[in-house]
Amino acid sequence: MAPSIAVENLNPKVLKCEYAVRGEIVIHAQRLQQQLQNQPGSLPFDELCRPPFLFLPSQILYCNIGNPQSLGQQPVTFFREVLALCDHPCLLEKEETKSLFSADAISRAKQILATIPGRATGAYSHSQGIKGLRDAIAAGISTRDGFPANADDIFITDGASPGVHMMMQLLIRNEKDGILCPIPQYPLYSASIALHGGALVPYYLDEKTGWGLEISDLKKQLEDARSKGIDVRALVVINPGNPTGQVLAEDNQCDIVKFCKNEGLILLADEVYQENIYVDNKKFNSFKKIARSMGYGEDDLPLVSFQSVSKGYYGECGKRGGYMEITGFSAPVREQIYKVASVNLCSNITGQILASLVMNPPKVGDESYASYKAEKDGILQSLARRAKALEDAFNNLEGISCNKAEGAMYLFPQIRLPQKAIEAAKAANKAPDAFYALRLLESTGIVVVPGSGFGQVPGTWHIRCTILPQEEKIPAVITRFKAFHEAFMAEYRD
Amino acid sequence: MAPSIAVENLNPKVLKCEYAVRGEIVIHAQRLQQQLQNQPGSLPFDELCRPPFLFLPSQILYCNIGNPQSLGQQPVTFFREVLALCDHPCLLEKEETKSLFSADAISRAKQILATIPGRATGAYSHSQGIKGLRDAIAAGISTRDGFPANADDIFITDGASPGVHMMMQLLIRNEKDGILCPIPQYPLYSASIALHGGALVPYYLDEKTGWGLEISDLKKQLEDARSKGIDVRALVVINPGNPTGQVLAEDNQCDIVKFCKNEGLILLADEVYQENIYVDNKKFNSFKKIARSMGYGEDDLPLVSFQSVSKGYYGECGKRGGYMEITGFSAPVREQIYKVASVNLCSNITGQILASLVMNPPKVGDESYASYKAEKDGILQSLARRAKALEDAFNNLEGISCNKAEGAMYLFPQIRLPQKAIEAAKAANKAPDAFYALRLLESTGIVVVPGSGFGQVPGTWHIRCTILPQEEKIPAVITRFKAFHEAFMAEYRD
Repeated sequence: MAPSIAVENLNPKVLKCEYAVRGEIVIHAQRLQQQLQNQPGSLPFDELCRPPFLFLPSQILYCNIGNPQSLGQQPVTFFREVLALCDHPCLLEKEETKSLFSADAISRAKQILATIPGRATGAYSHSQGIKGLRDAIAAGISTRDGFPANADDIFITDGASPGVHMMMQLLIRNEKDGILCPIPQYPLYSASIALHGGALVPYYLDEKTGWGLEISDLKKQLEDARSKGIDVRALVVINPGNPTGQVLAEDNQCDIVKFCKNEGLILLADEVYQENIYVDNKKFNSFKKIARSMGYGEDDLPLVSFQSVSKGYYGECGKRGGYMEITGFSAPVREQIYKVASVNLCSNITGQILASLVMNPPKVGDESYASYKAEKDGILQSLARRAKALEDAFNNLEGISCNKAEGAMYLFPQIRLPQKAIEAAKAANKAPDAFYALRLLESTGIVVVPGSGFGQVPGTWHIRCTILPQEEKIPAVITRFKAFHEAFMAEYRD
Repeated sequence: MAPSIAVENLNPKVLKCEYAVRGEIVIHAQRLQQQLQNQPGSLPFDELCRPPFLFLPSQILYCNIGNPQSLGQQPVTFFREVLALCDHPCLLEKEETKSLFSADAISRAKQILATIPGRATGAYSHSQGIKGLRDAIAAGISTRDGFPANADDIFITDGASPGVHMMMQLLIRNEKDGILCPIPQYPLYSASIALHGGALVPYYLDEKTGWGLEISDLKKQLEDARSKGIDVRALVVINPGNPTGQVLAEDNQCDIVKFCKNEGLILLADEVYQENIYVDNKKFNSFKKIARSMGYGEDDLPLVSFQSVSKGYYGECGKRGGYMEITGFSAPVREQIYKVASVNLCSNITGQILASLVMNPPKVGDESYASYKAEKDGILQSLARRAKALEDAFNNLEGISCNKAEGAMYLFPQIRLPQKAIEAAKAANKAPDAFYALRLLESTGIVVVPGSGFGQVPGTWHIRCTILPQEEKIPAVITRFKAFHEAFMAEYRD
């Protein structure tokens, strides 16, 4: 028999899909990490691990992905106390527990267990998630927005990604169904659209105006796609932006909502960075709040908001929790969404509990409030300082310009690469920014993602770098990056 | 604008997909449960909640799905101790912890945390799962099979379902790609094949020989499919069987392995019930063990084994943990599987830890061993007694015959429905077994799944009923079922 499975006879949609944040460069980094383990000192950046350049023991610094706890961020104590108690409810009956856990964590765990049928944290739940936890999430959304939210509209998911996949699966029939996505975009969207065989319809964020979202460009791209026979189903907006870090202004959001209503588009709002705002003159507004403030109700606009426990100040990526809030969909369509959710039975209960906690953290008066507030503020203030330090450092380097990270967890500097570097990249069969990122990795152990993985205006080159290395390591990162960049430019300067 | 999203313009693959175990009957049950909450006493089976018929407080008894802890099964203490400690590692530094947790749970948690980079249980892991946990799973497989297993072959997943979806996504290009599935089958397979747009190629299990799997039927169905231009890519075998409960004999498994090798088929082995065996004359053998015992190596046969923390004696459905072990795939194909896994970043860490625990439970000499063993044996022996009691009860009813549950968690009795019942079902626009199951639900509060959701020989009718109600409730379930069935037959007898 011929080989029953070979790359040539795999699903071509799988072959087409790309996911840069865990792509070639990360696989190469893992190889280098292995090499360092087997032959310490065999790579030039080994010195990074010695004072004053104190990196992680792994010696590779992963700035490719928004994974705060992998770089040393500590989880919020209150959340973890509640999770531990829900994992092992017998603890609640023991006297010693009172000295090990805060009183409000104990009462919250009891309250959560009471909403779980049979207190069974090991049972499949309702396919949308445990009703009591969805009630808590809806209450958190109402408090945030000042408009009501409904537990029936909440689908708790294993992080935001499965929610995005579910919507793409629902909407995309064939390659003539299009989804408007920002460029640059988070590659989950391009990957998911490729896996489901649809068309990514790009609209460009304007780098010169701090990654502004122009309705005129949206309209132009929509009309262009329609003229090619693409049935554009939905608009993806990532706010705060990933990889671009901008926070949308309220009037801009109003225009986007109006645009979706007028054009009959579903608004897919990626709002996973809603807690990550680093500037005083901007604040997060959910698209649902904006739409309701404009007087638009359910019937005016189908809207999906994605939220995740992986981001914010919580950064609980490994717990895989999140939700999507779905409004403005007809009952028969919601039944189909429920059916798809039910094929995977339910999302993990630990993640479900955590999603309810991040939407309902301790309040003034609770025993944990002061420590919770200190942990939260400490993390967010430090992230703001790190973002600013890295942004300034990038802007001080030859040929690099970097917009402010108003929010999210990334900087996306543009690097004007010399022609000689572009030619060297071509000779190495790499995109120029991938070539730059690989050289950076090999010289410094710092892992960033080439802009080509996110999309960028043709002829421009970027990298995405998280702002997540521990604050005390930022000076070393900057020194090292600067040394690499100067050497690179010296080698390739035209 | 026309409505931007309506059932008519959804992905037709989604519309086509069906998932009976959480389908119409379960949604109806949830409605009834709501009704009982709002108007206690408004349904005839309300009396079930009073002695001697002591049902769950919810008054609806969900026997539709293998969800042990939802029906009162308690989690294994050792597993939950380790999870709680890993969720809140600060506990490991406290003196009181020693009196709250067993010593081996403490040392296991420390050992697990030491394998997680930065002890960060809240970080995204490697897309295949944490390397140290995969090492532990591979060691568990080696011990089970007596043949080596490799951590690089393990993909830890959020339960078995995402692994199955991943393989279907990889293999199915269009409606001409076929997957051989048993009939009856677990509807995850039909749902996943429908969602990915492939062809389910059925082979029938023989009810008369205790759901025997005949190679001659496999061959016939394969040739038949090929003659219609179907490219049959893989064979799904569920062992122990779901919904059918049979445990394959070793020589039968050898024949299946040979068949796959000769026909160039990938063997997709659903082995999630590997710990659920209730008869002395049968034992579980993994297909990998069988293949290696036959002298077949990696190059002879692409083989995927699915395992889950949801089943066995552990029954930790809500934790969403599991893995697939992939052998016999070329490096380029494995890279594609890795890529698809990476688009979802990683499975949840709690589930990952639990997957490592169920494959490496306490051993003789460990502090927890005796209590662990007692919990495990208690659950499995009770399940065996419940299976036997329900099987005997079904076989004592007019027109019902039921094969033994040698393994898994279900009985799948055949019900010979009278012609008048079949006509009444037709008038109500229901499949006859769905009609029967709905009547059963409305009369007794017992939720079972109609056989039509799993597939069955045309003209035969079945239901799937889990063996999971608590042992002390089994007599009440039987009494009630008997009363319903006799009344139903009296009403419709020809």
